[in-house]
Amino acid sequence: MRPDRFHEECAIFAIYGHPEAAKLAYLGLYALQHRGQESAGICASDGRRLVCRKSMGAVADVFTEPVLAELGGAAAIGHTRYSTAGSSAYLNAQPFTVECNKGQIAMAHNGNLTNAIELRRELDAAGSIFQATSDTEVILHLVARSRERTLPAALREALLQVEGAYSLLVLSEKQLIIARDPRGFRPLAMGVLALDGVECPVFASETCAFDLIGATYTGEVEPGEMILVGPEGMVRERFAPEQPRSHCVFEHVYFSRPDSTVFGRPVQQSREMLGRLLAQECPADADIVVPVPDSGVAAAVGYADEAHLPYRVALIRNHYVGRTFIEPSQAIRDFGVKLKLNPVRSLIDGKRVVLVDDSIVRGTTSRKIVRMVRQAGAREVHLRISCPPTISPCYYGVDTPSKEELIASSHSVEEIREYVEADSLGYLSMEGLRQAVTDTDNRYCYACYTAHYPTDLVGIEALLQSGDRRR
Amino acid sequence: MRPDRFHEECAIFAIYGHPEAAKLAYLGLYALQHRGQESAGICASDGRRLVCRKSMGAVADVFTEPVLAELGGAAAIGHTRYSTAGSSAYLNAQPFTVECNKGQIAMAHNGNLTNAIELRRELDAAGSIFQATSDTEVILHLVARSRERTLPAALREALLQVEGAYSLLVLSEKQLIIARDPRGFRPLAMGVLALDGVECPVFASETCAFDLIGATYTGEVEPGEMILVGPEGMVRERFAPEQPRSHCVFEHVYFSRPDSTVFGRPVQQSREMLGRLLAQECPADADIVVPVPDSGVAAAVGYADEAHLPYRVALIRNHYVGRTFIEPSQAIRDFGVKLKLNPVRSLIDGKRVVLVDDSIVRGTTSRKIVRMVRQAGAREVHLRISCPPTISPCYYGVDTPSKEELIASSHSVEEIREYVEADSLGYLSMEGLRQAVTDTDNRYCYACYTAHYPTDLVGIEALLQSGDRRR
Amino acid sequence: MRPDRFHEECAIFAIYGHPEAAKLAYLGLYALQHRGQESAGICASDGRRLVCRKSMGAVADVFTEPVLAELGGAAAIGHTRYSTAGSSAYLNAQPFTVECNKGQIAMAHNGNLTNAIELRRELDAAGSIFQATSDTEVILHLVARSRERTLPAALREALLQVEGAYSLLVLSEKQLIIARDPRGFRPLAMGVLALDGVECPVFASETCAFDLIGATYTGEVEPGEMILVGPEGMVRERFAPEQPRSHCVFEHVYFSRPDSTVFGRPVQQSREMLGRLLAQECPADADIVVPVPDSGVAAAVGYADEAHLPYRVALIRNHYVGRTFIEPSQAIRDFGVKLKLNPVRSLIDGKRVVLVDDSIVRGTTSRKIVRMVRQAGAREVHLRISCPPTISPCYYGVDTPSKEELIASSHSVEEIREYVEADSLGYLSMEGLRQAVTDTDNRYCYACYTAHYPTDLVGIEALLQSGDRRR
Amino acid sequence: MRPDRFHEECAIFAIYGHPEAAKLAYLGLYALQHRGQESAGICASDGRRLVCRKSMGAVADVFTEPVLAELGGAAAIGHTRYSTAGSSAYLNAQPFTVECNKGQIAMAHNGNLTNAIELRRELDAAGSIFQATSDTEVILHLVARSRERTLPAALREALLQVEGAYSLLVLSEKQLIIARDPRGFRPLAMGVLALDGVECPVFASETCAFDLIGATYTGEVEPGEMILVGPEGMVRERFAPEQPRSHCVFEHVYFSRPDSTVFGRPVQQSREMLGRLLAQECPADADIVVPVPDSGVAAAVGYADEAHLPYRVALIRNHYVGRTFIEPSQAIRDFGVKLKLNPVRSLIDGKRVVLVDDSIVRGTTSRKIVRMVRQAGAREVHLRISCPPTISPCYYGVDTPSKEELIASSHSVEEIREYVEADSLGYLSMEGLRQAVTDTDNRYCYACYTAHYPTDLVGIEALLQSGDRRR
Repeated sequence: MRPDRFHEECAIFAIYGHPEAAKLAYLGLYALQHRGQESAGICASDGRRLVCRKSMGAVADVFTEPVLAELGGAAAIGHTRYSTAGSSAYLNAQPFTVECNKGQIAMAHNGNLTNAIELRRELDAAGSIFQATSDTEVILHLVARSRERTLPAALREALLQVEGAYSLLVLSEKQLIIARDPRGFRPLAMGVLALDGVECPVFASETCAFDLIGATYTGEVEPGEMILVGPEGMVRERFAPEQPRSHCVFEHVYFSRPDSTVFGRPVQQSREMLGRLLAQECPADADIVVPVPDSGVAAAVGYADEAHLPYRVALIRNHYVGRTFIEPSQAIRDFGVKLKLNPVRSLIDGKRVVLVDDSIVRGTTSRKIVRMVRQAGAREVHLRISCPPTISPCYYGVDTPSKEELIASSHSVEEIREYVEADSLGYLSMEGLRQAVTDTDNRYCYACYTAHYPTDLVGIEALLQSGDRRR
Repeated sequence: MRPDRFHEECAIFAIYGHPEAAKLAYLGLYALQHRGQESAGICASDGRRLVCRKSMGAVADVFTEPVLAELGGAAAIGHTRYSTAGSSAYLNAQPFTVECNKGQIAMAHNGNLTNAIELRRELDAAGSIFQATSDTEVILHLVARSRERTLPAALREALLQVEGAYSLLVLSEKQLIIARDPRGFRPLAMGVLALDGVECPVFASETCAFDLIGATYTGEVEPGEMILVGPEGMVRERFAPEQPRSHCVFEHVYFSRPDSTVFGRPVQQSREMLGRLLAQECPADADIVVPVPDSGVAAAVGYADEAHLPYRVALIRNHYVGRTFIEPSQAIRDFGVKLKLNPVRSLIDGKRVVLVDDSIVRGTTSRKIVRMVRQAGAREVHLRISCPPTISPCYYGVDTPSKEELIASSHSVEEIREYVEADSLGYLSMEGLRQAVTDTDNRYCYACYTAHYPTDLVGIEALLQSGDRRR
Repeated sequence: MRPDRFHEECAIFAIYGHPEAAKLAYLGLYALQHRGQESAGICASDGRRLVCRKSMGAVADVFTEPVLAELGGAAAIGHTRYSTAGSSAYLNAQPFTVECNKGQIAMAHNGNLTNAIELRRELDAAGSIFQATSDTEVILHLVARSRERTLPAALREALLQVEGAYSLLVLSEKQLIIARDPRGFRPLAMGVLALDGVECPVFASETCAFDLIGATYTGEVEPGEMILVGPEGMVRERFAPEQPRSHCVFEHVYFSRPDSTVFGRPVQQSREMLGRLLAQECPADADIVVPVPDSGVAAAVGYADEAHLPYRVALIRNHYVGRTFIEPSQAIRDFGVKLKLNPVRSLIDGKRVVLVDDSIVRGTTSRKIVRMVRQAGAREVHLRISCPPTISPCYYGVDTPSKEELIASSHSVEEIREYVEADSLGYLSMEGLRQAVTDTDNRYCYACYTAHYPTDLVGIEALLQSGDRRR
Repeated sequence: MRPDRFHEECAIFAIYGHPEAAKLAYLGLYALQHRGQESAGICASDGRRLVCRKSMGAVADVFTEPVLAELGGAAAIGHTRYSTAGSSAYLNAQPFTVECNKGQIAMAHNGNLTNAIELRRELDAAGSIFQATSDTEVILHLVARSRERTLPAALREALLQVEGAYSLLVLSEKQLIIARDPRGFRPLAMGVLALDGVECPVFASETCAFDLIGATYTGEVEPGEMILVGPEGMVRERFAPEQPRSHCVFEHVYFSRPDSTVFGRPVQQSREMLGRLLAQECPADADIVVPVPDSGVAAAVGYADEAHLPYRVALIRNHYVGRTFIEPSQAIRDFGVKLKLNPVRSLIDGKRVVLVDDSIVRGTTSRKIVRMVRQAGAREVHLRISCPPTISPCYYGVDTPSKEELIASSHSVEEIREYVEADSLGYLSMEGLRQAVTDTDNRYCYACYTAHYPTDLVGIEALLQSGDRRR
């Protein structure tokens, strides 16, 4: 169940060569809002000048007709993000647009650099000034300080200095540049949008953005690849030596939309398989299978199918949940959860229920849902989680709670079961997870389940010791 | 699939005796927004004075902290509605609050009076002035003109003059009055909210509003019943002679939330049974059953269960659909539908699909969805509708399209099938519908499927001839 | 010095026969905002239908391009008002638009009916319902209940029942009707706007509205006159027997703009003469004459001229005073006045100052200004008021404080002088006031200075006893 | 007559050591809005962290209670500015806040650097990135790149590299630094606000800001002076070698409020003297003296006094002029001016009028006013300007039109007279101007009247040749 759990930093979208570039970027971002809808920005180029508009708020609120009308030109990049709270929120909204000796540059970034602190420290010492706390600004400074004469060369040089996760869009007056880190942590899909016989290249975090605008998915931006798109066409090149891949498995477990293809694999297939394997590994003597909406739906369908148990939509979402909701001062038990979910007593009453969700973070929400189901008359509640216990935070662009807040980092499965007040609790095994995403050749990062990080985390660890966790 | 199809005029909520009356009304309306979210209003009484706040917009937008803070007092009524377009929108927002010889009165109304035009004509002739076009104002005029001295007596007299559908909330400085038309067209549930040993009466269009605030459903406001709630307690009385009941069956087919109990029956049970009977009546040689979200979900689960076919969530909703969405000027085929739905190709490709929806109105949306599913690779698309063909408009509070716009009013099932481009099309029978809602004693109105209206429609017909359809 | 002193209820404007009627109404209201800028409304007719838009806020905020675009048609009436606080504010915004047996009618009103309470009581008893507390609604009810068949006849009948002050604009689909009470309490000027050889009639509270749109002032709407403007042209007729005139003298003293002609006389002439006569009646042995901006400017110029003293602009206004200004919590002495005025020390220091203002209400603001001038170094401060002491409230459309709040109702001039801490205090005499407005034949109402009201005030007095002062 | 003529870039305000620092900055900016009201910003420090809030809009709109509540701490700097149009508007809003190796720094700046282009070119080459086009960012880069270890030392080093006009406020976590360019182009006053026996230093562009908050003016920040304010107290030091002074004379002619003391001299005294000398130099055989409001008021009073002619307020301003005003599409002659001014016919008719204004820029507005006065019946119109002809743009922080747009740069006084259709036209002489501001020792800059600039303008000229005039 979203949100208050994990937060993806952002979604990105780019298009080149279409007379309505900004409007299509807007539509693309619209389809990607499950990845973050607290700020939105688009930067467009008409070949001579970049114009950037960004603001706090959901895509459809930020981009009204007059705002879109200011974003002329045939190339555009867009960004939508989960917003950090507080004063830096606006400053960190993307795309980030600056002027430097490489000209006007706009940059939009999904991911997290693991050596951003060191780099920033060096830049700081050398006299750079920073507006915001984003990694994007670090990359921009590296580009500006590069002795290379061209933007692509300077960007290449800059990216060879950064470590961690980045799916990156760069727009200059004349050029769109796409780059992805050598391990391919975060997704970045490529497609084409046909327009009067011409094929405009498009790029997006997930393919569901292509579906909305009628573009066709053609493959992944390869890890370690840089793609240059300009008036003369498109050039793809490798800018970094090959490294093992580390695709974020949590994209398949939770983040991405089930109708997207991510890392080349349809998310829906992974998710259904997660449910099937979960049913095999953790069966339950029960009457019905109920998903925790919306995150548990696909896995619950798989579980029910595999277990030959009836699938029942017995938790109903209250739509229209706004951020500024006013809570009653007379305490209503479990109110926050009630605001989001309501059980269907007629389905649950007297039943032994398998409840399927995608993860347990602090355990508090899961407990409230288990109680809610029990109060609706369930005789037994069997909680099934479609991945292994989450024990360690992510440093590659997912905004997980800290280790201390992750119940599974310090509690056994039985202790968690007791805490959430379920009759039984089952997690999918690591093996099951690998199988569900068909990871036969170690292409995925499982660090949040194993605490084995595929890269060094020197800077991050220094930061953690200083107590100031970084976004 | 909502919306652009049928529109419920509104939802209503009332509470008496609670120190946070307005806030609970706000929460109640929040849970009822699927019935209309274009305007929202609450009127509260502190025992001496009514204060009313209403505005265009969704409940959470209209009622901010400062606005709620102005609504002090222990009694409140609330209203949220689907808004008619244009200039009269604000004027028609409810509750309607006036002063007259019966004191200050606020009124909120769900339904439609079938003799409102005649009544208005008479009032008009007698010198009444009208601000808006709502039926509520007609009732208020009748109350004000009544020779009766008390508000309840005047309201009784007024209601005996009106015909049609009304679930009505009336608030004066000292009293809350609830009334429901003798046929019980529209739902109106009653419950209690316990507070420190005292039980506050609550009333709502659907019981899901009770669930959110932790109130307990105790039964229906009876058709033809008036309930007076005041400092001395609650009095229930019959104000109109008994008549046959005419509960709106469409509440069970489509409007109400599946987690609500409506007309005394859990909606989920009806909806699952609609799917099961549909599977029996209109089986399909297919591979998977796919609901059109969100309206087709419960029926699709029933269908899949009964047909022993796998249930698959293969149409994904784009959330965050705003009203002011900017469409691309480069025409994208079926864009409006894409904005709301995206097919999951990996589930659909190569499959024979049973698509379950709750109704077909004009046929255009259904055709777009059938095409979308086919484009996602479906080998066959079998459309199944969980009720009979909709052939006639509603005059009892549902904002259906006119007869001309209803494809089934002029086309055979086979013609519709051809139009929507499905391989087969099946509707549930009238008999199946009756059975699904367990209507053994003719308690429901099926006029939209049969064109047999349970009441006279003199005024309405006159109006229809004049071409100015009334809300 | 404005405001917090006297409030004019409103300004009105009408135009007939111009393709941009609503836009010209908007401009007219714009020029009249000194009479009230808390709500604004315009109702336009395209010959078939009235459309009304009104809202809280200043004219330029309420009427944006899209709002004006909705107000098509060649006839329009507009209203801007000083808003009463609290919940009824929006409901009382004008024009008031209703439907009744005389068709659609919009009404905008400047003034106050002295028998509104009795009329309302009767209407109430007869079953009328009221949305708001405005007198306008009373007139509308009388019109609707009239047995007369035509709107003009019904309006005539209605107006013969009301007493007090009204300058009234009425718009129906086909017709614009203008009426003014038989005593002519409130101003109402008439003009023509030439457009391609056609002359469109225009009506406004003050002629400065004509100046802005390039219209020419042609005279007054006569007291007791009704003017019918329609497709066939304009008809002027007397609807009420002749009565003595009672023009509000305070329009010349304070309300109207100095560049307006009001009651047929240029306001600037009156105001300069007020200052001259004040100098004759209450000379001062001083060095400079300083106006309290902006209300004292014209009288101060007259005073300085007459007294052969230098006129000095030694109190500077802080512009941009908004209503929602946030005050410092650390108390700053006389802060509210500081926010509006700042003295020019270099002009005042060491000088004997004559301070000219248009009135003293409670005395508190005057005291703050006297202190401020003294702190800026004035050796002596001689306060001169360009009218007699205000001792009694107005019941004809000016929102004066209650009698208790008027310092001059209970204090002698010497006591007031002591309270405001001036070295001397002089008021203009009644005789001077009459002379300044050239009132040779008793055409003016001086009730606020004399407590002699030209009409019965039965209803008002009843109300006053009940303690609920009416707007 | 303001505006559309000259634009001051901004106003600045600082306070240190007061628990309500941000609120007082807000009040200070409020009093300074005549210098620019299109964007407003405040940055406050609580000793550990800077928080900055800025936005497009007037001070009272930007700073609502919740926004001010976020600005805790005892030190604050504020800025309000005339906004350049277009996309860079928000980015250029001040204060500018960054992080660098000198810590967190906020900067607010009034003035214009004449070598900003060269400096920016160098920084650019060295790899600096720029968000905006403001000079402030250039200074921040110089500070960040300085090898000096402390902020004051780095700032000193930076300021020794810049040329032109700057009155500068710098806030770090612990310190407030004030600096002013060696010639003292722009004003910067110093004062103290007493609070419970402690005296908090305050700084502002004009002393009227001190008056509003009850602070006392103590003198000027000296040209070439840097003032360090911190927990240990205040240190004043000279950071640049002494240079001749170049105070902007236009502050006395037009910009500053008459109640301010600027460059140590009360503005009102200068302005009255401008009028007196103008009367001596350019007498007119006339009946009345009329100021063009509000800029011509003080000079007109001086003129009238000196000429022994009656002063008459015969042009009335329409208040409430908003930026988004909707003009009538049916052209109304001289509409823009009418929106702002209306003549008082009763004062003007048949008279020979001396019209006093502070300057003529393009001549178009002056012509409209002359025509307006003539249409109101003036027999003769004698235009008098209280300074010499404006022939050359300002490069020190005043946003004058380009040389081509200045009518006096290419036309003789007689030609201008003809263009503005006045019967006679008189400008004050340079000698008169010097005398009015008592400039006995060449302390003022008169470049806009003489085209003799007190500093080199190498960068500016290069820029001008490239056609891209810089703000």
